[in-house]
Amino acid sequence: MPDVIAETLHELIVATRILANEKVLDAFGHVSVRHPHDPQRYFIPRHRAPELAEISDLVELTLDSEPVRPTEFRLYSEKVIHGEIYKARPDVNAVVHHHAHTVLPFAISGREIVPVFHLAAVVGPVPFWDQRDEFGDTNMLVTKPDEGASLARALGRNWMVLMRRHGATVAATGIRELVFRTVFGSDNCKLLSQAMAMGHVDSLSPGEIKLTSAHQQRPPSTNRAWDYWVRQVEKAGLMPAKAKAGAKKSAASPKRAAAKPARKTAVKSRSKKRR
Amino acid sequence: MPDVIAETLHELIVATRILANEKVLDAFGHVSVRHPHDPQRYFIPRHRAPELAEISDLVELTLDSEPVRPTEFRLYSEKVIHGEIYKARPDVNAVVHHHAHTVLPFAISGREIVPVFHLAAVVGPVPFWDQRDEFGDTNMLVTKPDEGASLARALGRNWMVLMRRHGATVAATGIRELVFRTVFGSDNCKLLSQAMAMGHVDSLSPGEIKLTSAHQQRPPSTNRAWDYWVRQVEKAGLMPAKAKAGAKKSAASPKRAAAKPARKTAVKSRSKKRR
Amino acid sequence: MPDVIAETLHELIVATRILANEKVLDAFGHVSVRHPHDPQRYFIPRHRAPELAEISDLVELTLDSEPVRPTEFRLYSEKVIHGEIYKARPDVNAVVHHHAHTVLPFAISGREIVPVFHLAAVVGPVPFWDQRDEFGDTNMLVTKPDEGASLARALGRNWMVLMRRHGATVAATGIRELVFRTVFGSDNCKLLSQAMAMGHVDSLSPGEIKLTSAHQQRPPSTNRAWDYWVRQVEKAGLMPAKAKAGAKKSAASPKRAAAKPARKTAVKSRSKKRR
Amino acid sequence: MPDVIAETLHELIVATRILANEKVLDAFGHVSVRHPHDPQRYFIPRHRAPELAEISDLVELTLDSEPVRPTEFRLYSEKVIHGEIYKARPDVNAVVHHHAHTVLPFAISGREIVPVFHLAAVVGPVPFWDQRDEFGDTNMLVTKPDEGASLARALGRNWMVLMRRHGATVAATGIRELVFRTVFGSDNCKLLSQAMAMGHVDSLSPGEIKLTSAHQQRPPSTNRAWDYWVRQVEKAGLMPAKAKAGAKKSAASPKRAAAKPARKTAVKSRSKKRR
Repeated sequence: MPDVIAETLHELIVATRILANEKVLDAFGHVSVRHPHDPQRYFIPRHRAPELAEISDLVELTLDSEPVRPTEFRLYSEKVIHGEIYKARPDVNAVVHHHAHTVLPFAISGREIVPVFHLAAVVGPVPFWDQRDEFGDTNMLVTKPDEGASLARALGRNWMVLMRRHGATVAATGIRELVFRTVFGSDNCKLLSQAMAMGHVDSLSPGEIKLTSAHQQRPPSTNRAWDYWVRQVEKAGLMPAKAKAGAKKSAASPKRAAAKPARKTAVKSRSKKRR
Repeated sequence: MPDVIAETLHELIVATRILANEKVLDAFGHVSVRHPHDPQRYFIPRHRAPELAEISDLVELTLDSEPVRPTEFRLYSEKVIHGEIYKARPDVNAVVHHHAHTVLPFAISGREIVPVFHLAAVVGPVPFWDQRDEFGDTNMLVTKPDEGASLARALGRNWMVLMRRHGATVAATGIRELVFRTVFGSDNCKLLSQAMAMGHVDSLSPGEIKLTSAHQQRPPSTNRAWDYWVRQVEKAGLMPAKAKAGAKKSAASPKRAAAKPARKTAVKSRSKKRR
Repeated sequence: MPDVIAETLHELIVATRILANEKVLDAFGHVSVRHPHDPQRYFIPRHRAPELAEISDLVELTLDSEPVRPTEFRLYSEKVIHGEIYKARPDVNAVVHHHAHTVLPFAISGREIVPVFHLAAVVGPVPFWDQRDEFGDTNMLVTKPDEGASLARALGRNWMVLMRRHGATVAATGIRELVFRTVFGSDNCKLLSQAMAMGHVDSLSPGEIKLTSAHQQRPPSTNRAWDYWVRQVEKAGLMPAKAKAGAKKSAASPKRAAAKPARKTAVKSRSKKRR
Repeated sequence: MPDVIAETLHELIVATRILANEKVLDAFGHVSVRHPHDPQRYFIPRHRAPELAEISDLVELTLDSEPVRPTEFRLYSEKVIHGEIYKARPDVNAVVHHHAHTVLPFAISGREIVPVFHLAAVVGPVPFWDQRDEFGDTNMLVTKPDEGASLARALGRNWMVLMRRHGATVAATGIRELVFRTVFGSDNCKLLSQAMAMGHVDSLSPGEIKLTSAHQQRPPSTNRAWDYWVRQVEKAGLMPAKAKAGAKKSAASPKRAAAKPARKTAVKSRSKKRR
C-alpha cells in the first residue's frame, strides 16, 4: 500500500513538470491528486512555482482544504478549487488549475472552446465561470470555499471550465488522463484560434466526440503520450528522482521536510543528470 | 544487399527524429518506408511516440498491413494509411502521417493549401478528405483497410492530402524527398496563413510549380536540406547510432528486440553524445 | 550597510538576466535601481547588451545621470529615462526601458493596453508618449534631460508608459515588483492582442484592478514568481556569481573593473555552472 | 594584409552563424563579403546550409561569380545575386539572401514593408522584384547573370529588396551593419504584421528614418548588438574557431580544404566548447 502512494506522489510531480515543460504552467498554477486510498483527502504541493515543487513539498489536505497534519508550509491560496471539485465530483481524481497562454484568449474574449481535432475530443464542452457574477469585485483569486463551490458548480459534469479574465481548471479520472486532456486541450485552443482567423471552424460532431474521446482515454493512447512528454522532461533535465519507500514519509511529515533545503537538492540532482 | 536495408532503416529513424525535432510530429504520427527490395512490404515503428522509436522498434508489414513475422509489439492502429497508399501508388516509397500545428488550421477551416514560395513547390495541389463523408461518425482514426483505401483515393496522383479535423498525410518517392516536402509543406502553411491575414495571397503559377518542383527534388537540394536537419538533430542530442550490419536482424526478429530495454539504451547513447 | 548594496547590485543583475531570458530585453534596453541609501543616486550598467552586463559593469549616477566618480565606461545614451523618472517619482526605486516584441505592436498601432487577466492587474493604466509631439524629428532616442523629463511627465502617477514607434518604460517600488510587472505586462500584451483578433476584449474592472494589484504586489506572490524566473535563468546558465563583500568596490571604482576582461570571466563562470 | 583577410573571413562565418541562430537562415540562403583589398572579388561559402559553412568552405569569386581559382566545390546556383549587386553598387561590401519566415508573408501578400520602430530605421524603403515579370515561368532561382542584374536594378540605391514568392536580399557597407539591418529588418516585419492585424500602423517619418538610421549605423550601436548576437551563438555552441594566419590559405586553395572532412572537425570543435 505505501508503494501505491509513493508512485502516485511521484507521478503527480512528473505531471507537474510535464505541464511546466509544455508551457501550460509557469510561476503560477497547481496540480493535485486525490489520495488513492482515502477519497476524503488529496495531495498538492506547498505554495511555490509548480516546476520547482518536489515530492517533499507535497502536503495532504482534507476536502475542506485543511492540512491533515500541522504544517509550517505556506499553502496555495486557491487550494479550494481542488477541494471543492473533489467534493462535488467523486469521479474526479486529479485536477489542474492553470493560465496557459493558449487558453487565456478565450477566457478574455469569451469565445467558446469547441474540440476541432481528434486528440482534443477528450476536452468535451467547456462552460464559462465569472467570479464577478456571484462575488462582485474581488482579488480574482478563488480563495473561499464558497468561491470554489461556485466554480465546481459551473464545471458541472464537464471536464474543463474557463474562468473569465483568469484561466482554466481541468479535471480527470486520473493523472495521465489529466495531462493528456490539458495538453491537447491547450493545443486545441491554439489551433481553434488560428482557424477562427481563417474565417471558418469545422468542429467535431457529438458522435465523433463520444467515440473518439472513449478511444483516446484508453491506456495505449494516454501512455504513449505520457512516455513522449516524460522524454521531453528528461531532455530538459527536469525529471524528479524516482519515488522510494521513504517518499511517503516526507509528505506525511512536512515539518521535517521543510527543514531540508529542498531546492538545493533539486538543483544538485538535475546537474547530475546533465553529465 | 543487407547494407541497403540497414541504411534504409537508419535513414527512416533519422527522418523520424528530424520530423520530431522540426515539430511536425509530437506524441503521435508515424513515418514508414517501402522495403527497398520487396515492393510488397514496408517498414514502420511499433506503437510508440515517433521521437522515441529506435531501429529495433521497426516491424516489417505486408501491404495489407499485417506483420510479415509474428510479433508481440503493439502496432499503430492507423498503419493502413501506409499500406493502402503503397498499394495504390507504386511510385510512392515513403509516407508520413502527422498533425503538425502549422497544417491543422487548414484541416479545421477547410481553406485550401496552395504553394506560396519556391521551396514549397514540391507540395503541389493538396486535396481534402473527410472520414465522415463516407464512414459517418467514427473514432476518427483510419484503422480499417476501407478507410485507408478511401484516403488513398483522395490522395490520387498528388503528394499530400488534408484530413478534416485530423491532420495530413504526405507521400514521396524516397525518404529525403519526404522530409523535404513535409518540412517545407509545413512552413508553407505557416506562411500562407500569415499572408491570408494580410488580405492577399500570391501563389506560384502552374509553370513555376512544375519547373521549381523538378529542381528542388534533385539531390543537391534535398541533400543540402537533409544535412542541415541532421545537424539540428545532432545538436538536440537525438541522432540514433549508425546502422550496423546486424541492424537488419532486430527488425527481422522483433521478439528478441522487445526483450531488450530499448528505451534505456537510447537514453544512454544520447547522454554519451552530449559529453 | 555594504551588504545591502552588494545584495541590491546582485539583484539588479539577476533581474536583468531574467528579463533577457524572458525575451523582454535583447541587444538593447536597460534596467536600473535607485541607491538603497542615497535617493539622489542610481545604479545602471555601462553601455552594453543587458544580458552581458556584470556587477563590475555597474556605474553609480546622480539623478542628472552624471557619473558620481570619473569613469572610462561608455554610458547608455538613454540614461536620462532613468534619472528623470527617479527625480519625478520618489516612490519609484527601479526602472526598465525595453522594446519587447509583445509590447511594440501597441506602440506601433496606438491601440490601448488594458489589463485582461489577474496577474496583469499590477500594470494599471498605460499612457502613450510620442517624442515627435514635443521634439519633432529626432534620432528617436531619449538622450536629453528635457526628453527624459517629458517622458516622466507622460508616465505621471502610473507604472508603465508606451513610447510610440519605440518601446516602453516600466517603473516599480522595487526590483522584484519591477520584474513581475514587466513580465506579466508583456504577457498581457500578447494575450490582449490575441483576444483582439477574436473580436472581443473583456478587461478587469477598476475594483478588480485595485484589489488584485494589491494582492499580487505582496512578497508571497512576487517572490514565488522571482524564484521561478531565477530557476529559468539557472537552467539557461545565465546566473551571475553571488554578490560578495567586495562587490561594492567594483561599482565604486569602475576604472579598475574596466581593466579586467569582464566578459571572459562571465563565460568562464557559466561554463563552470554547466558541468 | 593577410590578417585583414583572415579577420574578414572569420567575421563572415560568424555573421552566417548569427543569422542561422537568429532564424533568418535555415537550410537555404547565403551571406557574402567583398574582398577587402580587391573590389572586383568576393568571398562566399560553397553550396551547403549556411549554419554548416566553415572558413575552409569559402571560395573567392569574381564579380561575374566565377571562381578565381579552379575548385571542385559545388557553388550556390544563386551566387549571381551577390556578384551583380557588387557590380552595381560599389558602396556595398556585404550581401545576404534569405527566406526568413518574418519577411516571407510580405513577399507573398505584396504588402509594403515600412520601418515601424527606431531600430529598423536602417532598413529604409524596400522595393519589390518579381522574377516572373521579366523572365516568365522559371525555376524561381536567380541563376543567370541577367536575372541577378535585374534584381540589382530593382534594389537600386536601397538596402533591401523583396523577391515575390521567394524571399529577400539585404545589402550593407560592411558585415556588422548587414547583420544589424537583417535582424532588425526581420523583427520589423514581425512587428509590422502584428500592428497590421490591429488595424493601424504608425511608421517612422522620413526625418526620423534619416536621423535614426545615421545613429544606429555607428559602431557603438552595431557593435553592442554584434556582441549580444555573438553571445547567443556561443551559448548555442556554434562559434567557429578564431581565424589564424593560415586561414587565408584554405580559402585560397579550396581543393586542399575539400580533402579535409570539414564537417567532422566542426562537430568536434563544438563539443569541445560545450564542456
